[in-house]
Amino acid sequence: MDNYSDRLIGRIKKKGNPCVVGLDPRVDQMPHFITERLTEKSDENVRKAIANFHRIVLDTVAPMVPAVKPQIAFYEQYGLGGLLAFLDTIQMAKERELIVIVDAKRNDIASTAQAYANAFLGRAQLPWGDEPIFDVDCITISPFLGRDSLDPFVRACTEYGKGVFILVKTSNPGSRDLQDLKDSESGQPIYVRLARMVAELGQEVIGKSGYSSVGAVVGATFPQQAKELRSLMPRSIFLVPGYGSQGGTAEDAAKCFNSDGLGAVVNASRSITYTFQDRDISEKEYARLVRNNVETMATELTTAIRTHVTAPHE
Amino acid sequence: MDNYSDRLIGRIKKKGNPCVVGLDPRVDQMPHFITERLTEKSDENVRKAIANFHRIVLDTVAPMVPAVKPQIAFYEQYGLGGLLAFLDTIQMAKERELIVIVDAKRNDIASTAQAYANAFLGRAQLPWGDEPIFDVDCITISPFLGRDSLDPFVRACTEYGKGVFILVKTSNPGSRDLQDLKDSESGQPIYVRLARMVAELGQEVIGKSGYSSVGAVVGATFPQQAKELRSLMPRSIFLVPGYGSQGGTAEDAAKCFNSDGLGAVVNASRSITYTFQDRDISEKEYARLVRNNVETMATELTTAIRTHVTAPHE
Repeated sequence: MDNYSDRLIGRIKKKGNPCVVGLDPRVDQMPHFITERLTEKSDENVRKAIANFHRIVLDTVAPMVPAVKPQIAFYEQYGLGGLLAFLDTIQMAKERELIVIVDAKRNDIASTAQAYANAFLGRAQLPWGDEPIFDVDCITISPFLGRDSLDPFVRACTEYGKGVFILVKTSNPGSRDLQDLKDSESGQPIYVRLARMVAELGQEVIGKSGYSSVGAVVGATFPQQAKELRSLMPRSIFLVPGYGSQGGTAEDAAKCFNSDGLGAVVNASRSITYTFQDRDISEKEYARLVRNNVETMATELTTAIRTHVTAPHE
Repeated sequence: MDNYSDRLIGRIKKKGNPCVVGLDPRVDQMPHFITERLTEKSDENVRKAIANFHRIVLDTVAPMVPAVKPQIAFYEQYGLGGLLAFLDTIQMAKERELIVIVDAKRNDIASTAQAYANAFLGRAQLPWGDEPIFDVDCITISPFLGRDSLDPFVRACTEYGKGVFILVKTSNPGSRDLQDLKDSESGQPIYVRLARMVAELGQEVIGKSGYSSVGAVVGATFPQQAKELRSLMPRSIFLVPGYGSQGGTAEDAAKCFNSDGLGAVVNASRSITYTFQDRDISEKEYARLVRNNVETMATELTTAIRTHVTAPHE
């Protein structure tokens, strides 16, 4: 069984950048060459529109980036058609040898968390035997219910060669409300406490690369905290949201990297896939726009990381 | 647009008890009269097994209880077959005039939370117009990402006459890890801070009953905290998990109720639907067992609530 972190680090090195393209289906905002075929109301039509849109994105970005991040909320909002398109997207991404990180932020008590771990990383028990369901590389999870709620996911990482990113410090303004509160015992913010838990949980799933398959979500929008969290979780890979549309810069995101120039992947969703001004854009122009957006992101990030690594204490 | 809390309180009064039956599909544990038909491997077969199992449960409990709580993790673990069965379950529960509370603990940044709110409570935007997707009465949500992540759900409560239960103090042992930490500023546990936020968010969605459509999840396994939380959120309805299999007693759960004998619903899942010793149980015996389990729960709870209300300071 190969280790998820080794797989991800290998893919980052091969592609020469740590960019993740976020896949957020928003049918009402897609180009007309996709939505013009959506005349008849049916789940199958919604599925086709979302799958066709993402086929273009995946064909374009597959040679360029190590991973993609489907945000399941945007699929779930379309019900059955959305779920079918989610399955299609995963399948297409795998065929193109992209690492698939599902952004789902699932969380529940242990027995229920086990069901989520089965769904995304492991196998469901059925009368005809165990069966993989979504079978993706990695899922984001929330630590709100505590350690016992995370254990089933961590076990699945070991058992199936998968990964998790545990929310530690999210990119939204409201992350201050709970994650920044200081624990009266230690005087330190909750996110510090969570970081220690992530580092500990990750000890058992460290690959040959030296990195763990238990990673952390750390927003690019809080670069000061990112520096602190980097030192608390030296072996955890960070999934860094908040770059692009949410206001985080390449320099901010660079603070999530270690001195080896590794240790994080940076996600951009809308700023890669929805930057067209005119929904009448052609398929060819759209693919070119996505390619340009990824190229710009990769260049900005690799430059900022190089600068950060050579002068980390700036 | 009728108010969710009024709808729920009305249904509780009509049925004479605050019991919620949790629906957790575990195909590998269902009676043989369900699984014996599952010979051929297909999503449609998995769907039928789950839907048939829950049709019996729903037929049995519909005259007895106000609401049911499908736990989406247990559906999600079966992929497409599971989602189809989830849609069937919702439809069957609505036809039987049961309130549907989906236990999903969804959470994300505001723009993504909006997609979840659209999926479960509101409408998705499609070229042929807005369309309801799951369209259930209520969903459980997690506050880990802070206030801005909750707002889209609260807005959906007002706009569509729906409800939410926000996690405040969950029933699992690990709820101590984060929810019990004391904030250094106030010296009070995180769950107290969350309770104040729930009470504030709920102000705008108070129905004729005096209760809000913004409720809280408070585990029966922590009765001391429940008493405190009851006083902090007088107008919030509590969804109380942890009764039954998880060890919470009727007396523990009763502490979540107000002096009017209202203000909470108590869930039981496995201790209602999976108590048979022998998977060779017949359909008729299974239905009788479920009925007996609900009767016992309703009697225990209504007795405990009556005792609690007449001697609340015991």
